[in-house]
Amino acid sequence: MEMRVWRADVAAQQVWTEDVPASWERLGGRGLIARILLDEVPPTADPMGPKNKLIWAPGMIVGHMVSSCDRISVGAKSPLTGGVKESNAGGTTGLKMVHLGIKALILQGALPTSGTWVLYLDAQGGRFVPAEDLAGLGAYATGQRLLERFGSKVGIALIGPAGELRLAAACITNLDKDREPARKNARGGMGALMGARRLKAVVIDAAGGTKPPLVDAGLFKAGQKLYTTELMAHPQTAIYRDYGTAALAAVCDSLGALPTRNFSSGHFELVDQISGEALRDTMLARPDSCDISHACMAGCTIRSSNVFGSADGEKIVSPLEYETIGLVGSNLAIGDLDSIGRLNHQINDIGLDSIEAGAALGVAAEAGLFAFGDAEAAARLLEEVRRGTPLGRILGNGAAVAGKVLGIRRVPTAKGQAMASYDPRAIKGTGVTYATSPMGADHTAGLTIRANVDHLDPKAQIELSRTAQINMAGYDSLGACIFGGFGFAKATGAIRDLINGRYGWGVGDDYLQELGKATLEMELAFNRAAGFTPADDRLPEWMTTEPLPPTNSVFDVALEDLDRTLQWS
Amino acid sequence: MEMRVWRADVAAQQVWTEDVPASWERLGGRGLIARILLDEVPPTADPMGPKNKLIWAPGMIVGHMVSSCDRISVGAKSPLTGGVKESNAGGTTGLKMVHLGIKALILQGALPTSGTWVLYLDAQGGRFVPAEDLAGLGAYATGQRLLERFGSKVGIALIGPAGELRLAAACITNLDKDREPARKNARGGMGALMGARRLKAVVIDAAGGTKPPLVDAGLFKAGQKLYTTELMAHPQTAIYRDYGTAALAAVCDSLGALPTRNFSSGHFELVDQISGEALRDTMLARPDSCDISHACMAGCTIRSSNVFGSADGEKIVSPLEYETIGLVGSNLAIGDLDSIGRLNHQINDIGLDSIEAGAALGVAAEAGLFAFGDAEAAARLLEEVRRGTPLGRILGNGAAVAGKVLGIRRVPTAKGQAMASYDPRAIKGTGVTYATSPMGADHTAGLTIRANVDHLDPKAQIELSRTAQINMAGYDSLGACIFGGFGFAKATGAIRDLINGRYGWGVGDDYLQELGKATLEMELAFNRAAGFTPADDRLPEWMTTEPLPPTNSVFDVALEDLDRTLQWS
Repeated sequence: MEMRVWRADVAAQQVWTEDVPASWERLGGRGLIARILLDEVPPTADPMGPKNKLIWAPGMIVGHMVSSCDRISVGAKSPLTGGVKESNAGGTTGLKMVHLGIKALILQGALPTSGTWVLYLDAQGGRFVPAEDLAGLGAYATGQRLLERFGSKVGIALIGPAGELRLAAACITNLDKDREPARKNARGGMGALMGARRLKAVVIDAAGGTKPPLVDAGLFKAGQKLYTTELMAHPQTAIYRDYGTAALAAVCDSLGALPTRNFSSGHFELVDQISGEALRDTMLARPDSCDISHACMAGCTIRSSNVFGSADGEKIVSPLEYETIGLVGSNLAIGDLDSIGRLNHQINDIGLDSIEAGAALGVAAEAGLFAFGDAEAAARLLEEVRRGTPLGRILGNGAAVAGKVLGIRRVPTAKGQAMASYDPRAIKGTGVTYATSPMGADHTAGLTIRANVDHLDPKAQIELSRTAQINMAGYDSLGACIFGGFGFAKATGAIRDLINGRYGWGVGDDYLQELGKATLEMELAFNRAAGFTPADDRLPEWMTTEPLPPTNSVFDVALEDLDRTLQWS
Repeated sequence: MEMRVWRADVAAQQVWTEDVPASWERLGGRGLIARILLDEVPPTADPMGPKNKLIWAPGMIVGHMVSSCDRISVGAKSPLTGGVKESNAGGTTGLKMVHLGIKALILQGALPTSGTWVLYLDAQGGRFVPAEDLAGLGAYATGQRLLERFGSKVGIALIGPAGELRLAAACITNLDKDREPARKNARGGMGALMGARRLKAVVIDAAGGTKPPLVDAGLFKAGQKLYTTELMAHPQTAIYRDYGTAALAAVCDSLGALPTRNFSSGHFELVDQISGEALRDTMLARPDSCDISHACMAGCTIRSSNVFGSADGEKIVSPLEYETIGLVGSNLAIGDLDSIGRLNHQINDIGLDSIEAGAALGVAAEAGLFAFGDAEAAARLLEEVRRGTPLGRILGNGAAVAGKVLGIRRVPTAKGQAMASYDPRAIKGTGVTYATSPMGADHTAGLTIRANVDHLDPKAQIELSRTAQINMAGYDSLGACIFGGFGFAKATGAIRDLINGRYGWGVGDDYLQELGKATLEMELAFNRAAGFTPADDRLPEWMTTEPLPPTNSVFDVALEDLDRTLQWS
């Protein structure tokens, strides 16, 4: 299929396609989203108003099942941060969109005031299908109903009640390769923007679609092979296959960076009960309900995902990942995996980002709304979110709003977005990323935990964060998973060959960095025009003064160093 | 008494005085607050954290009972706007502070974690007095208890439960000349900053204090006489004496600018029941409980305040003013003065800004939390604020937070602060002030309603707002009431003579403008360093697209015009 720009207007009930503008052709994923936002959305627009647009953009090498490289980027001006946002996910949405020739899908136009709609896309085009029966339904039931209605081969991107309630912590959820609504464009409130246009789901039927053409199939395959070989050989790949991302719990705890009791400690006394080892042992003891190594996208060789089930054979949630274990586990002083898994399932069903939800619950516990460690009380609060009560709306709008309303100063956010499961006082390079990324606090924008540095040294972090941020902006444009970097970093020339094999552009060995820098420059330009200044590139004041046990470190990276993090020209 | 800087640290339980730094000597009120903030508070400081300071600064001509010129400015980095804030009030606080030689009182230092305190100031110095018995008490009972404890001659600045709950719409309330806690430093959440330091009240015993010296008493008296004569002769003075500020209700309604049903209309069908004429007629019919013309400060010749009582002889509230009639009356579709007066008393007792509280209630009604027009339901919601429930905290943090949490786009705020009772789509000059004032939406920063222009013409507003903002920044530094401008505008040389008579500085006829510009320049510098940009000098997007009945006007002042409003050099 020819790659085209698809546009959908719910209020006008119109879907149409357009040629790809020349300036968008050499972009994809995160970079294309930044370009479209600069071209079409006023940076000062009300994020919840009609001038904002919600954009789906598959990564540039999506479509050929290169391992971990079929991700879908979703972006907009974020209702959570007020700035540029891109949030990417695995699953099948990216692959199916590319097979229909979708370079970008742009949801735009007036905000409808009634109705609940599904946007159905296939090789003939797109149309809106009424879906009143799905209104208020949880993500899991919504996915099931849509599969029954549209057949088991479709891709689906959907929202839960949180998105319909237009809550700033609402995610968009994609089917994984096993048709489970499990892979989330989690961050930045993208689900609220589907809800604002009363769109419950996008259903993609790729029957009749085609893989995108390869200008030089041999070159592409050579790049793919080189990359896959290096990825398979990397020691981290085996660790992720065996332990999943949960392997990070023990690592972070040993660094004193595991968020515990609303980021008041970096060590959790029950870490051994929620570590990767504990998760693996639990899953090995429950072979009927667990799948210890599971791929979220077809063709992935890392298989860091999992299916987590109970001792009596029932599935609890898929996947159970480190960020949730940290934010919903140690951060709430909940030390057993079954409880964390059930809360994770509930958060998924409501359609929330589990990082933002866990951080908001941590703030709520600090405010005395429930006791740290009380998983049942946390579950009750989450049901308030589902019902859209005033208290639920406080929490569903994320940690920064919860802190503001509840009068709590210890709120772990940057640019209004909750930090992931790495306390920046003990992993300061990731703190630099939290502070300076145009995305707000986001570990996937430039995680530094694996660097061979003293993570407490404030002077050692700037170049580290800069490099990570540039690379990730590149990977997010390619459609590659953060873990794909294990392979690409060693496979010199692989990205060059994949791009030249796919498009014939004749790019060089620095292409990833060029793409990453160009992407960041567009994002920074959007944020500047939206009113962001260096004063926004800061961590909360309390993190600069309140020592974090057990290292008793504060975030003390110099402001002038922060301000040069994303300067390279 | 020699003018000195007083400092108080609750956590350290210390009060001390210092010489006035040279660069502070020629400043007072609003201008001095801006200077102190620039000198002592990091612009990016957490407003609710220990680096923020709460500053009282009497105006520069306070101390001699010049009519309407004994106002007290209170300022800080605002927890509501995140920017510079000054909020001034009448009553007796300013006069008594000056009589103790207080150039500025600065509340600073660590945030105490327990206790409730009164700061007692007299000619011997200051000390903290435990006041656990006042914790949670309403403003009226607090005032009464403090008068019983410290004698009837003291001045008092106190907070209600809203301040103790650290809510961003919390005010500070001062005794008026009749010892009623009635004159509020209403805007910008200054009460939350007393609450953050667990300070329930400042009690000022001026016994043994003295009027500030006059370098040239004859010159001062000449200036005072000239000003008072012109003030008395101004036709508006008579209107305010007879009708109070409520006279503005009919004026605004006739311009289509009376906020009605959460700023969805500029005309209220029941305006005749809440107008100045209606208020006057009601009060004339209730001579036992009402005082139709009442001075908030000793020596005031305008006497725009009032005491509003019921038909059965009970006092309801003092004063009942236009901003409350608009925001709590027409904005909530409540069309009877008794209900408005009772809600006003309740808002005062809780210790909230009635503009911010009314605007937040309007948003709540739009969100379906109660029906427009239902005063009893509004009262029940206000009790949620008093109790500090999650819903109460949503409303008590002001309209912008309420809109964000409740998912409402029609929120009448600028820089996070609610607009006063002039819809900017129909009085566009005041809209320019709302957008560009470093204070956020604040009519007292530059009201344009009395200008002889077409208020709907977007081109006619910039110079108007600029002049008003400069003059008001000057008056707010002098300690003059906004209505004092009626006199000063005609009394050429009066300000010059008052300042030269008081201080001997030899200032010229442009002194008010010089002072105003210097004040605004400091405030703008603080806000820039705090991260504000022209993107913050905007009204909400919906006000630029949603026509306001009955004029069907939108706010269409050009952005480039907004951006030159406060440029003069």
